[in-house]
Amino acid sequence: MVTTAAVLLAGGTGTRLYPASRSHRPKQFLALGDDDRSLLRRTADRAGFADELFVVTRESYADRVRDIVPEASVLVEPAGRDTGPALAYAASDIRERYPDAVLLCLPSDHVVGDGFRATAETAADVAARTDALVTLGVEPDRPATGYGYIQPGDDRGDHYEVAQFREKPDEETAAELLDAGCFWNAGMFAWAPDAFLAAARDGPLEPLVDALETGGDVDGAFEETEPVSVDYAVLERAADVRVVPADFEWDDVGAWDALLRLADGENATLGDSLAVDASGNVLASDDKHVSVVGADDLVVAAFDDRVLVVPTDEAQRVREVVAELREDELF
Amino acid sequence: MVTTAAVLLAGGTGTRLYPASRSHRPKQFLALGDDDRSLLRRTADRAGFADELFVVTRESYADRVRDIVPEASVLVEPAGRDTGPALAYAASDIRERYPDAVLLCLPSDHVVGDGFRATAETAADVAARTDALVTLGVEPDRPATGYGYIQPGDDRGDHYEVAQFREKPDEETAAELLDAGCFWNAGMFAWAPDAFLAAARDGPLEPLVDALETGGDVDGAFEETEPVSVDYAVLERAADVRVVPADFEWDDVGAWDALLRLADGENATLGDSLAVDASGNVLASDDKHVSVVGADDLVVAAFDDRVLVVPTDEAQRVREVVAELREDELF
Repeated sequence: MVTTAAVLLAGGTGTRLYPASRSHRPKQFLALGDDDRSLLRRTADRAGFADELFVVTRESYADRVRDIVPEASVLVEPAGRDTGPALAYAASDIRERYPDAVLLCLPSDHVVGDGFRATAETAADVAARTDALVTLGVEPDRPATGYGYIQPGDDRGDHYEVAQFREKPDEETAAELLDAGCFWNAGMFAWAPDAFLAAARDGPLEPLVDALETGGDVDGAFEETEPVSVDYAVLERAADVRVVPADFEWDDVGAWDALLRLADGENATLGDSLAVDASGNVLASDDKHVSVVGADDLVVAAFDDRVLVVPTDEAQRVREVVAELREDELF
Repeated sequence: MVTTAAVLLAGGTGTRLYPASRSHRPKQFLALGDDDRSLLRRTADRAGFADELFVVTRESYADRVRDIVPEASVLVEPAGRDTGPALAYAASDIRERYPDAVLLCLPSDHVVGDGFRATAETAADVAARTDALVTLGVEPDRPATGYGYIQPGDDRGDHYEVAQFREKPDEETAAELLDAGCFWNAGMFAWAPDAFLAAARDGPLEPLVDALETGGDVDGAFEETEPVSVDYAVLERAADVRVVPADFEWDDVGAWDALLRLADGENATLGDSLAVDASGNVLASDDKHVSVVGADDLVVAAFDDRVLVVPTDEAQRVREVVAELREDELF
């Protein structure tokens, strides 16, 4: 068996879950769905089989991360630059301590069902065996337009080669990709640090990787790197990428409408609520009581001193609210 | 000049403005619209020209009423039985102290514009002169279905005789009543106590009036009286009722959609809010911040630990929410 090091990405905010998520209380710290553990804590528990546990986060979240995951080594990003730079930083740091490790890189703010461990162990094994970059591919249950897709190529027994990454599609294309047996890119990966850093050189992370390899001004190089996802910066350019089909339920809880997918009844509820002649709503609050009468298909979210209302099918537009609130330093 | 005694009715709750209104904080205690005085305080100020000031309220509101209107004599109803019993009780009480007074009976939770005093003084004068029951009639600016109408009869110079009271009409009838020059019944009245109590005998208030006149068990009679509006219990049955056209703006702020009528901009706002691609909404809160994106024509009201969402054109249905909350003792 290889040495596996789980790397939990916990530097984001999850703005589309405002007002549950706020700059001081990002999504990974929230207990969403039918579980009173935070999403971060659940991710750490799920990755507990790994030999080592790391969490990459931003300076302002580090203390809280240490509270939630005291068993983890916390890596503080020099700056928030999305997943590409964060994972290069983590790969370099962990390689020094565990030269032979395989990294299992995981978002810390998704809802993941049973069966994760088997898939993750397969992915780590493929990464160790092949030196490829390995993604976990989730089997779609609907033609979602909000996720990237992975088109599988040759069947290699316990995994596929990746023929192509497909960006978030329009609805028609999403239906085609679903029919063609493509996977959702869930942002979960396995790789050896050497393989990852070598692939990362061939793209926008080159200056950062140079600094990491040569012991140069890493903080400076990090700050000068434009924010970029690991998908765009590395995976879509890499020569050898594989996909392991995921054998578990998965939801990224990307926006409030996700709670409808996770819910049973007429409305998705979190906290106390009363619905009178109202269905298809997401009613979410902390210690508040939310009433809706005669209205369908709305998100009503009330946390702290903030209330948000948006149609469920426009839940992505919470970004627009957050953008305006940020301008006024109200996020 | 007659002695005028203003009688402010402050025993109701204003349930349709939940959650701003709650059992412990009725509508008349709220500062709605562009004025930081409570509706009760504004009513007292507006009636300040009267020689005497009374407030009729329920036991649980009495202390707060005394805080808000320290200059008033507070009459505590033996029980909450709507405006009919309350006004009979007030007429009897005030007559003992001021036998020659004319009462100016006023809701304490309406928004009333300039010009009130002149109309009210005319009404008091007509009441003193004719011994009739006098209503203030508001000139409609739309075919509202939520108000009762007053059909004027013979023109008596500074007022009309009342030909007929019309209950809340359907839309078609409302348009006809508007065209026919009818007035809205705003629940504002002037009368001599003797005239009122004599008229009140001819209806469901008879046992209560008997107890009041004979010094019998008033509390018992009050409690045994069914809740009944003064319109139904007295005015619609009385032989001689007059209407004085009101020369002022008026809104009963009966439900949340009223704020749209009182507002200027794209949305009616009370408290901090942010509207992104959203119009026709009522966004009302205490110290909370309400955001709406991509949704029109909704009431979003957030007060204390309560949030309510209802389409503006169904704002009356807040009653249904309050009915359910009352069952769970959550109102």
